[in-house]
Amino acid sequence: MPYRLYYWPGLPGRGEFVRLALEEAGAPYVDVGRLPASEGGGAGAVVAARKGALGGIPPFAPPILQAGDLVLAQTAAICAWIGERHGLVPADPEARAHAVQLQLTVMDLVAEAHDTHHPLAIGEYYEAQREAAVVKAAQFRKERMPAFLGYFKRVLAASGGPWLLGETRSYVDLSLFQVLSGLDYAFPQAYAREVPAELQVLRQRVAALPNIAAYLLSSRRQAFNEHGIFRRYPELDG
Amino acid sequence: MPYRLYYWPGLPGRGEFVRLALEEAGAPYVDVGRLPASEGGGAGAVVAARKGALGGIPPFAPPILQAGDLVLAQTAAICAWIGERHGLVPADPEARAHAVQLQLTVMDLVAEAHDTHHPLAIGEYYEAQREAAVVKAAQFRKERMPAFLGYFKRVLAASGGPWLLGETRSYVDLSLFQVLSGLDYAFPQAYAREVPAELQVLRQRVAALPNIAAYLLSSRRQAFNEHGIFRRYPELDG
Repeated sequence: MPYRLYYWPGLPGRGEFVRLALEEAGAPYVDVGRLPASEGGGAGAVVAARKGALGGIPPFAPPILQAGDLVLAQTAAICAWIGERHGLVPADPEARAHAVQLQLTVMDLVAEAHDTHHPLAIGEYYEAQREAAVVKAAQFRKERMPAFLGYFKRVLAASGGPWLLGETRSYVDLSLFQVLSGLDYAFPQAYAREVPAELQVLRQRVAALPNIAAYLLSSRRQAFNEHGIFRRYPELDG
Repeated sequence: MPYRLYYWPGLPGRGEFVRLALEEAGAPYVDVGRLPASEGGGAGAVVAARKGALGGIPPFAPPILQAGDLVLAQTAAICAWIGERHGLVPADPEARAHAVQLQLTVMDLVAEAHDTHHPLAIGEYYEAQREAAVVKAAQFRKERMPAFLGYFKRVLAASGGPWLLGETRSYVDLSLFQVLSGLDYAFPQAYAREVPAELQVLRQRVAALPNIAAYLLSSRRQAFNEHGIFRRYPELDG
């Protein structure tokens, strides 16, 4: 039975971290939110899943993965679940714990990147908080983004590379690829200035993995846009 | 060999989620940041650990747990590691994945509670962003806090209780206890208005666990204060 991913249609968002893991794993999945409503998909299906229609421990928010009887939410928890069942992380418990550590740090960076355009109220329009967003984004570009990027460069140095955990690619590499791509989309000037060469190489290395390369060329891959986490608002790029 | 916890002295912070797990487990640990510098402790030891002095995959930020050869960061990763080795979570993989899902949702709530007093710049003083904080906190009290609290009430209903995962207490219950206590400290009026009775009962149930009850009376337990995640600024409680 294929996995079923429930995530909002119309933006890559946090669902994309799950898609990249499923694609690299070669695991069959249905991207329910992107199906037509007439086939049981669309935003309505995601809303229903969010409200607990799939049963089990309820989710707080999408992405939600249905894997047989399991219904699992939280991006990092889903990526770890897939990774541990499809060879996207080493088998030893310490490496798996480090993968979770790194994935959570990737997700912290995702949250901070998101908050640059929604610093005051997650449920309000960007335009209503643009002034605060300009302040928040400046601090993100000058301090937080360089701190995170420098950190992942140090991780590569500590592991010996070429991947974050060392000799084998893991779901964390896929997620960092997505964040680097998103930062490049949202903050092209700051990204070009701040990204360490080692992370650019890692980004290209992920994009060249055969399953990922095929995915990126497919219609399953969605472009970044101004509904998602990473938004190109020129005033936020300084 | 006892665990060694590296976390900033002077505030409970994210270190407290780790301490609660270690205390409930009855696991010996050294709270390195709270040792005198003359015994290798203090903030300097935490700074050094943060900079990678313990070796291995470097941490981005404290808390950091040293467990033999393992050096692990990220609160949720540490709590899961301890929980899985000390009976603070059921053994089956699905329950463990759900525990991670719930712990990550607790940590999302922690991050949003923190950001009420630091909406614009994590490295700047509260006073420099108070106006934005008042806006952010109002939205947190009115929308986000009720959404999260309502969610955890639904989880209790879905699991059947009396604990979040059902019949056995887990590290997630300990963490939710800490968040409820912190919200009660930081937003006493909003908390009293919004907290579901079921979560108040859960909070009391955790406080009555023998190891936790003993811990809360000990000098190892630190009070909330205005250096931490949960700060009592009356203007943020409406």
